[in-house]
Amino acid sequence: MGKRKADRRDEFGLIARYFAPLAAAEAGAFGLLDDAAVITHEPGHQIVVTTDALVGGVHFIGDEPARDIARKALRVNLSDLAAMAAVPRAYSLALALPDEVAEDWVADFAAGLGEDQAVFGIDLIGGDTVATPGPLVVAITAHGQCKEGRAVRRAGARPGDRIYVSGTIGDAALGLRVLRGALVVDDGEMLTARYRLPEPRTTLGPRLAGIATAMIDVSDGLVADLGHIAVASDVGATIRADAIPLSRVVRRLVAADPAHLITAMTGGDDYELLFTAPDDRGGEIAGLAAELDISLSDIGEIGRNQGVRVVAADGETISTGAGGYRHF
Amino acid sequence: MGKRKADRRDEFGLIARYFAPLAAAEAGAFGLLDDAAVITHEPGHQIVVTTDALVGGVHFIGDEPARDIARKALRVNLSDLAAMAAVPRAYSLALALPDEVAEDWVADFAAGLGEDQAVFGIDLIGGDTVATPGPLVVAITAHGQCKEGRAVRRAGARPGDRIYVSGTIGDAALGLRVLRGALVVDDGEMLTARYRLPEPRTTLGPRLAGIATAMIDVSDGLVADLGHIAVASDVGATIRADAIPLSRVVRRLVAADPAHLITAMTGGDDYELLFTAPDDRGGEIAGLAAELDISLSDIGEIGRNQGVRVVAADGETISTGAGGYRHF
Repeated sequence: MGKRKADRRDEFGLIARYFAPLAAAEAGAFGLLDDAAVITHEPGHQIVVTTDALVGGVHFIGDEPARDIARKALRVNLSDLAAMAAVPRAYSLALALPDEVAEDWVADFAAGLGEDQAVFGIDLIGGDTVATPGPLVVAITAHGQCKEGRAVRRAGARPGDRIYVSGTIGDAALGLRVLRGALVVDDGEMLTARYRLPEPRTTLGPRLAGIATAMIDVSDGLVADLGHIAVASDVGATIRADAIPLSRVVRRLVAADPAHLITAMTGGDDYELLFTAPDDRGGEIAGLAAELDISLSDIGEIGRNQGVRVVAADGETISTGAGGYRHF
Repeated sequence: MGKRKADRRDEFGLIARYFAPLAAAEAGAFGLLDDAAVITHEPGHQIVVTTDALVGGVHFIGDEPARDIARKALRVNLSDLAAMAAVPRAYSLALALPDEVAEDWVADFAAGLGEDQAVFGIDLIGGDTVATPGPLVVAITAHGQCKEGRAVRRAGARPGDRIYVSGTIGDAALGLRVLRGALVVDDGEMLTARYRLPEPRTTLGPRLAGIATAMIDVSDGLVADLGHIAVASDVGATIRADAIPLSRVVRRLVAADPAHLITAMTGGDDYELLFTAPDDRGGEIAGLAAELDISLSDIGEIGRNQGVRVVAADGETISTGAGGYRHF
């Protein structure tokens, strides 16, 4: 970290004051004072790597506290690791800081990272901070580990597999509508909180190794992400609209206006785990839900016909619109 | 790669057309279609990780072809791996693309990466492309591997160790002055080429495992980077100005104006390897230089007194000025 010629802001000083303490617990980070870090993996394990970048004004509203921006940037990466059934290990941070950002902001940003490092058991191992005349860019590369050959991929779903999703769906998408002023709702804070700060399923993900046949985290939207599993696995999927787990607030919104259900299942930013498993693993999955105190809902079944079909209680297919499914 | 909701530019399309082919040879990249990639390491090896970010208008002049920007971004990371004695394995790419960038630019950028992947034996394993209203940001996290416990750090230099540097020093720094119009010189193209496109010492670096006691790549400047080794190793260093390896062009410039020597040894962007080794390893180092056809110059000695001292042929200490050495 921080070998490049120091920017006017004194990159070395920022690293020493705010980022080196975040790397103190990880011996392989060498105090962020070396050219690179070393990740030691346990024998019989593989390193799982994911990168997500967030841009100010594009991936967040703009008025978020630095602490929340830091935590969101880290958490979307942790969600990707969870979706591979990997346990978080360490992360690298590339931070392009606008000239107008004050040192207080950096201190708050680092405090947010420190807070989440403690929550999720992950340490900073390196990175780079640079100045930019443009908006803030936060790119995090997170490293996890999984037992050799046990990473759960998107490919692997088989006809007859049940489809499960953790938690509740749609809170974040409706929360974004609240933040944008497009929706006014009592108890809107729960929704906006879920948009602002995902809760990656880092405990659940690794426990699904050997159980889930395919897995993804819900970021593009439930229907689109199920589509990603279907395409990667060369299968199709049918889910029951009334089985999609909704929070009390969203249930009330949907009861008043069924269009909100479409937003819920296509809006994205849920960061829940969507996975498939053979029918005979249902008991284990129920046991895991009870043990971890995370709701895991059976929402449908994998079939042979391509595509994702959403079925209403009356058996009719619900059209989720163009936003619901993207081919690529 | 590319799980986030597609930007207007159609991120999925860009990834499929330009980036997925760069990941085709690496099975653990899963065609960039999964939530994360898996790095399988050889038994008895560790993963070495480094991140460098480049910002348009800050870290390059701005008129460089996309192909060269891509190659420079990758190469500065490869230089960090070389400085740890690690062999390149795979890299992740976070790319924030300005709205005005055309698809041709992306194609050219990816072509540059593909070219260097072949040269340096490294594959793309994942990343994220996002839109930005600001300048281009390229953040690369490169993964290498080294035998367990064999990474060469900045700490480790001992009094009596000889100090070596590869190649020639100062070409890039004087090349930047040429590009900025501050220096006019015949044969200036060699200098500007070295600024625009570093040649990371990826073959040499891993061969120095077990020989070098400390190592760094020269990016901040020869004197500053030797200072980093001295601080990390808690030693001092004395180098002989007339032993610093200079290209023919730079030798001629220095003969005309000795101030250019200060620019050469403090300017940076050389991406040569600077390392220390016990006196009795000189024969091996000479053999390595001959085998790899890379010049390795003995430029001085590690001592007990803190700091970096540059000595002229007449024994006088040369002041390298404030730019030459940064404490942090």
